[in-house]
Amino acid sequence: MTATFDALWAELAPIGRNRTTGGYQRLSWSPADSAVRSWFAQAAAARGLDVRPDRNGNLWAWWGEPGPGAVVTGSHLDSVPEGGAFDGPLGVVGALAAVDELRRRGVRPRRPLAVVVFVEEEGGRFGVPCLGSRLLTGAITPERASALTDTDGTTWARAMEKAGLDPDRMGADPDLAGRISAFLELHIEQGRGLVHTGQPVGVASTVWPHGRWRMEFSGRADHAGTTQLGDRHDPMLPLAHTVIAARSVAEARGAVATVGKMVAKPNCTNAVPSKARAWLDARAPDEATLRAVVDAVDAEARRYAVEHGVFLASFQESSTPVVRFEHELRDRIAAIAGGTDGPAPVLATGAGHDAGVLAAVVPTAMLFVRNPTGISHAPEEYAEPSDCHAGTAVLTNVLADLLSEEPQ
Amino acid sequence: MTATFDALWAELAPIGRNRTTGGYQRLSWSPADSAVRSWFAQAAAARGLDVRPDRNGNLWAWWGEPGPGAVVTGSHLDSVPEGGAFDGPLGVVGALAAVDELRRRGVRPRRPLAVVVFVEEEGGRFGVPCLGSRLLTGAITPERASALTDTDGTTWARAMEKAGLDPDRMGADPDLAGRISAFLELHIEQGRGLVHTGQPVGVASTVWPHGRWRMEFSGRADHAGTTQLGDRHDPMLPLAHTVIAARSVAEARGAVATVGKMVAKPNCTNAVPSKARAWLDARAPDEATLRAVVDAVDAEARRYAVEHGVFLASFQESSTPVVRFEHELRDRIAAIAGGTDGPAPVLATGAGHDAGVLAAVVPTAMLFVRNPTGISHAPEEYAEPSDCHAGTAVLTNVLADLLSEEPQ
Repeated sequence: MTATFDALWAELAPIGRNRTTGGYQRLSWSPADSAVRSWFAQAAAARGLDVRPDRNGNLWAWWGEPGPGAVVTGSHLDSVPEGGAFDGPLGVVGALAAVDELRRRGVRPRRPLAVVVFVEEEGGRFGVPCLGSRLLTGAITPERASALTDTDGTTWARAMEKAGLDPDRMGADPDLAGRISAFLELHIEQGRGLVHTGQPVGVASTVWPHGRWRMEFSGRADHAGTTQLGDRHDPMLPLAHTVIAARSVAEARGAVATVGKMVAKPNCTNAVPSKARAWLDARAPDEATLRAVVDAVDAEARRYAVEHGVFLASFQESSTPVVRFEHELRDRIAAIAGGTDGPAPVLATGAGHDAGVLAAVVPTAMLFVRNPTGISHAPEEYAEPSDCHAGTAVLTNVLADLLSEEPQ
Repeated sequence: MTATFDALWAELAPIGRNRTTGGYQRLSWSPADSAVRSWFAQAAAARGLDVRPDRNGNLWAWWGEPGPGAVVTGSHLDSVPEGGAFDGPLGVVGALAAVDELRRRGVRPRRPLAVVVFVEEEGGRFGVPCLGSRLLTGAITPERASALTDTDGTTWARAMEKAGLDPDRMGADPDLAGRISAFLELHIEQGRGLVHTGQPVGVASTVWPHGRWRMEFSGRADHAGTTQLGDRHDPMLPLAHTVIAARSVAEARGAVATVGKMVAKPNCTNAVPSKARAWLDARAPDEATLRAVVDAVDAEARRYAVEHGVFLASFQESSTPVVRFEHELRDRIAAIAGGTDGPAPVLATGAGHDAGVLAAVVPTAMLFVRNPTGISHAPEEYAEPSDCHAGTAVLTNVLADLLSEEPQ
């Protein structure tokens, strides 16, 4: 199994990698994304799996007739800009390697198995994360998804169409979703929880509730040399105060908040900007805390906007409630993943995943692989090969266990 | 003269204008810039002027044999992104209308006259303002200018070459500069100084010393959901503190400082940025104050960079010492521009201009036209047509006066 994993990993590794930085640029529907999707389709077909996109552009590779009662595993292949090698691909390569290992063991599934690649998990191009799984489960309407735009103004619908899919077919797919009896996602951990346990593989308990808010500060463009400071309506100033408030408010409440993206207009050295937009990413252990954090940041932003004569409009771009993965499946997996010393560690995570979206409609579980530095969404993201193999071995064992049962 | 001015203004007005916002996008060597340069060449040729680019891409339209002892007037046609209609074009249209008026009056110049259009005055594409006049006068080396890049990575040399010019000829042109005996620039005021005097036209006394500094904060990219706040090296935080410090430091010292441009990498909602760059524009009544402002902002930036475990590298991108326009020419112009109540108002300005660069090598003066709101570098920039005509009339009278003298 390790040889299959390593061979698949080596095939995928160069696609979309920046040779200077080592970072990955696999934005949805980009040439690099198209290349990794083709790679997946070929790798799955070479294993005799039947590969087809669903109505929303997610790719499904079936072993056996599609559903009902299907066991599904997979992850995503898109990246954030300058992302790491593991976030997403680990779960796809692990799934294909698990299929090979199940075959090698002579497993005869009593229910269908599918390997899935979800599209636009990161929201790196169109701003809404887990877009493919949200569309599938109806967590976002096709109208809203269609109109999402990238930084060049290309809509999701147009990008999908250019990739050869029919945007008119987009939307919730209860027929497909109804065939899934369990979904498993193998993923690199994006913090250092497993490092502290000394274990290579853990199981998810909850995903923190989280969301994205866009804050648009509208001021007035002016000449940077000749407009008196007191006459200005400079949107950069309340934005800067908001960045600082986000950190301090989150710190005080045991949450995390980040302004990782901002855009000023016209973004010119010698002009006071007319507009400055910032995106707030906030996550907390529970929904009341998350709401309190976002409200407090927004209040600070408004206070400074008023002080600088700037208009503020805030928009919620996405929101994901707390996800508590199903206890029965979680404990069964923890027992399989554990050793003689007891079950594998069970951890909460602050990161959103397709598994978190699917958990609303089907029994879902996540397996995490140890991340020695905790770094993710960056070229330095890393997991030891032996830990990736351990995660794949657990995935294989869990799949074998689930596939040995008749669908209920 | 007003009819000529209005006709020329109407020809130029639509080129590069965003029909939605009314703002202008005439970045150097862009299709819009090429169109305004062609418009100028045709308008000048239609007046029997001999049009030629110099070695640095500035356009010269000669009435009579080029120098020595030439009187030169003009301005620029490039804009900042989403700039106004007047900043630059007023001085070019005014110069051409003045030529028509001198002809109408039957003026026979005793020395050559040239109308000049300087390239990349705003630094809107390649970051260094007054690039054309700096190259002409040797205030920047051709090596440094060649290597300047726009946001797409295109170099100045390559952009110039694509526009049909030979970048190998770029550089100081003492022969051409030596032919100029006086340079006059008519320009919209970019503050409200003239509003307070009640006069439509004024004369410049000094240009505040000013410069641009690029501040690069290098942190570490991390996942926005899973990296503990205390583990982060988030460059956005010291940048935000720097934006706030720039305002408060400048306010305390009677200067102006602006962060109008910033770029984060990867600029993605769910990733802590690896890098954030901010550009500081600072201007002050004297050089000691300017130095003190920049040093204080830099010290604050460094303090917060250290606090957040972020590395800061600061670069001076441009610097212009204080310009004191020649007293003799200034007073002569103020007398011509004034009325029965005495000479026209004399004002300092915080804005850089090609006239400020040329002042280092030739007697130079600037005429300002009243700006009712003070707004500039924005679609709302405006001057009353009657004030533009008044400015052009003064320019015409000053040119007639200067052209009546034999070169010394």
